Amino acid sequence: MGIKDLTRDEIEFIVYTAETLKEISSRDIKKVPTLRGKTIVNFFYEPSTRTKTSFEIAAKRLSADTIGISANLSSIAKGESLIDTARNIEAMQPDILIIRYPYAGAPHFLAKHLDTAVVNAGDGMHEHPTQALLDVMTVKERKDEIEGLEVIIVGDIAHSRVARSDILAFTKLGAKVRVSGPPSLIPPYIEALGADYYPNLEDALTEADVVIALRVQSERQKQVFFPDVREYFIRFGLNRRRLSLTKEDALLMHPGPVNWGVELDPEIMELPRTIILDQVKNGVAIRMAILYLLMGSRLI
Amino acid sequence: MGIKDLTRDEIEFIVYTAETLKEISSRDIKKVPTLRGKTIVNFFYEPSTRTKTSFEIAAKRLSADTIGISANLSSIAKGESLIDTARNIEAMQPDILIIRYPYAGAPHFLAKHLDTAVVNAGDGMHEHPTQALLDVMTVKERKDEIEGLEVIIVGDIAHSRVARSDILAFTKLGAKVRVSGPPSLIPPYIEALGADYYPNLEDALTEADVVIALRVQSERQKQVFFPDVREYFIRFGLNRRRLSLTKEDALLMHPGPVNWGVELDPEIMELPRTIILDQVKNGVAIRMAILYLLMGSRLI
Amino acid sequence: MGIKDLTRDEIEFIVYTAETLKEISSRDIKKVPTLRGKTIVNFFYEPSTRTKTSFEIAAKRLSADTIGISANLSSIAKGESLIDTARNIEAMQPDILIIRYPYAGAPHFLAKHLDTAVVNAGDGMHEHPTQALLDVMTVKERKDEIEGLEVIIVGDIAHSRVARSDILAFTKLGAKVRVSGPPSLIPPYIEALGADYYPNLEDALTEADVVIALRVQSERQKQVFFPDVREYFIRFGLNRRRLSLTKEDALLMHPGPVNWGVELDPEIMELPRTIILDQVKNGVAIRMAILYLLMGSRLI
Repeated sequence: MGIKDLTRDEIEFIVYTAETLKEISSRDIKKVPTLRGKTIVNFFYEPSTRTKTSFEIAAKRLSADTIGISANLSSIAKGESLIDTARNIEAMQPDILIIRYPYAGAPHFLAKHLDTAVVNAGDGMHEHPTQALLDVMTVKERKDEIEGLEVIIVGDIAHSRVARSDILAFTKLGAKVRVSGPPSLIPPYIEALGADYYPNLEDALTEADVVIALRVQSERQKQVFFPDVREYFIRFGLNRRRLSLTKEDALLMHPGPVNWGVELDPEIMELPRTIILDQVKNGVAIRMAILYLLMGSRLI
Repeated sequence: MGIKDLTRDEIEFIVYTAETLKEISSRDIKKVPTLRGKTIVNFFYEPSTRTKTSFEIAAKRLSADTIGISANLSSIAKGESLIDTARNIEAMQPDILIIRYPYAGAPHFLAKHLDTAVVNAGDGMHEHPTQALLDVMTVKERKDEIEGLEVIIVGDIAHSRVARSDILAFTKLGAKVRVSGPPSLIPPYIEALGADYYPNLEDALTEADVVIALRVQSERQKQVFFPDVREYFIRFGLNRRRLSLTKEDALLMHPGPVNWGVELDPEIMELPRTIILDQVKNGVAIRMAILYLLMGSRLI
Repeated sequence: MGIKDLTRDEIEFIVYTAETLKEISSRDIKKVPTLRGKTIVNFFYEPSTRTKTSFEIAAKRLSADTIGISANLSSIAKGESLIDTARNIEAMQPDILIIRYPYAGAPHFLAKHLDTAVVNAGDGMHEHPTQALLDVMTVKERKDEIEGLEVIIVGDIAHSRVARSDILAFTKLGAKVRVSGPPSLIPPYIEALGADYYPNLEDALTEADVVIALRVQSERQKQVFFPDVREYFIRFGLNRRRLSLTKEDALLMHPGPVNWGVELDPEIMELPRTIILDQVKNGVAIRMAILYLLMGSRLI
């Protein structure tokens, strides 16, 4: 449901499974019959082309049938509760329900009330577990061990489900996590999550092994937390100079879509350490692993 | 096309076919190759996640390829007539065209002008035949015979295609149908359809075998037919007390989505007689039967 | 990418391939396993039910997995460039990316920067190559030779990617192309494209073998190029009388959707020479050929 509910062993097992499934996507016939005859419903209450497409491709490469349902909260407002809608979908006997929802806790709530397996594709500002898993997988491909790494997360920590899931995942695996960003975007309980706050970005970057820049989501901010994006870029944008403070082989990641010139300077787009597209690629593998393991645990 | 065009034998044969296909959805591999290589177009001019999803799942469980087309009347307004659009789709050689349309008669019109098999997924306030078929199937699972049952339909009879199709189906199978609801929502020709009108809900419910509550579709009403939903609930909402007037094993059904607290009191949500989710489940089976029989009649 | 980049031999080879694949759509099981395990992304930045559906059906008849992504320019405006979005999609390892984009050149740009095969499904006012190929195929079915035919294109030449691609395709195959339409809708460079401009429609139609009427796209015109559609019909609408000027067996075509009563008089809808639905049918075959050849060239 969330990284919070997974043990270190479970995280490692999912990533290991993803590593073994990854090569299917490079085959000439990129499809295995594992989930043939399974019905997977992609139930998205927020637009998210990337995550939805990634899950859909993952399901199809495992030969499952996929059904996409796009909803919006206005239709919920018409008097139908989430649980009603979900129970109706369940009555059509799908095997897995993948849900993205704008408010925290919805996937947990559904998992408690449904018999169908539920996958959390992002719930409000709470968690985005598959993103954290693919981030772990991507780091693990380049660094043999997560244990002991210095992972820096930069940006809007307070409103980011990616930040929350990443902090939980990397600390569970023994990494040390530092966060940096405008003070207005750092939640007060940050130490309780297991991360240290560095008001000064340069301090945070020093000797880092992994840098994860978060997306500035101007569309999600109702209040103004920082003056403007230009100011953000000056204070927290990552460029060649700032990255020179990290360890030499430090990785640069971003959950996408990047606002080039805001979170990242376009000059670092083509650096070998910029592995944003590896994240996207591994996203398909992680989602294949999740779907595979969910069905496996039912079949065994 | 509509329940109106089906004989009692045909209705029973479709329901019988659905009963035999139903277990496919409970299999581990819920898919049979029956319609492999068939192209089914889901052509919806009104948003309807449930019906569309149900048809899509039905098609996929029979191994057909499905193509979803969502349109709206504004695109029709751009100068392209329904028949033009449909002829264009037909030129791509689909096997079945499933259509939902906001005005009555569209599916019949298309069936007359196209060679492709057409399935009516709801046309205006006219008919919603697959809903009536799944209602019949659901009642038949619990009561051995439809013949002689007292079926009560409560609500907006005048604007409901479900009511119309249900009245036709249940009377064809020998049930007696009573309707109740605000006088402003009862069509003048109701007796001609074969149903009796009971202004008083309690009278209608007495000794009933099946109670079907209709959705209050505030979004479809342009005029105001009753003061407000609270008033509706007081006068026509179904609760434990009112249901006690029916026969002890009477069934409670609703085409969904339910406005809890308007048509139905939440206190009856979990009663064993409330079989709304059975209806949804049987909906997939009925739609599999329709698609199967349509193709079968072409192949034989 | 565009008809511009294809030689006469290549055009003929694609059309020949489409002719051999066409009968698959008339089979009882209209599906071949050729592209099993391939992932095809249908990436449409403009709404286009027809072209998108045609590509989707083509892909499914070849057993490919299809993923539809509908985007709009407002989402691009959110700070993500086309190339970023496309690179993200590519990271999920699709085999073919079909793109429709409102501005000219986007498919060429992507093809240059991506490793994935890119298919142009229409770019701005530039090209619509699969439309021209299906037009060629449709003419070739009725006339043995394209060489030497008189092809007349009527309407908004200046803003039509169909016109542009058709002029290029038919002239490459040795046909002579004349255009006619309101002077304000004829581009100044028309002779350079290889077509002759006839201000008078009757002159253009005389002794024609093929007449292609273009859609009046009022929604795309920001300025007003002609007084109104009624006036257009009077001056450039095709009717029985005007068609009598052409050769007796001349063909009448239109890329659709037709504005009946604007470009074409409804009286000619049912003439045997009106082969608009043949175009749509051949569209699926041409798109199957394109997908097949793109994958073939990778496999061999």
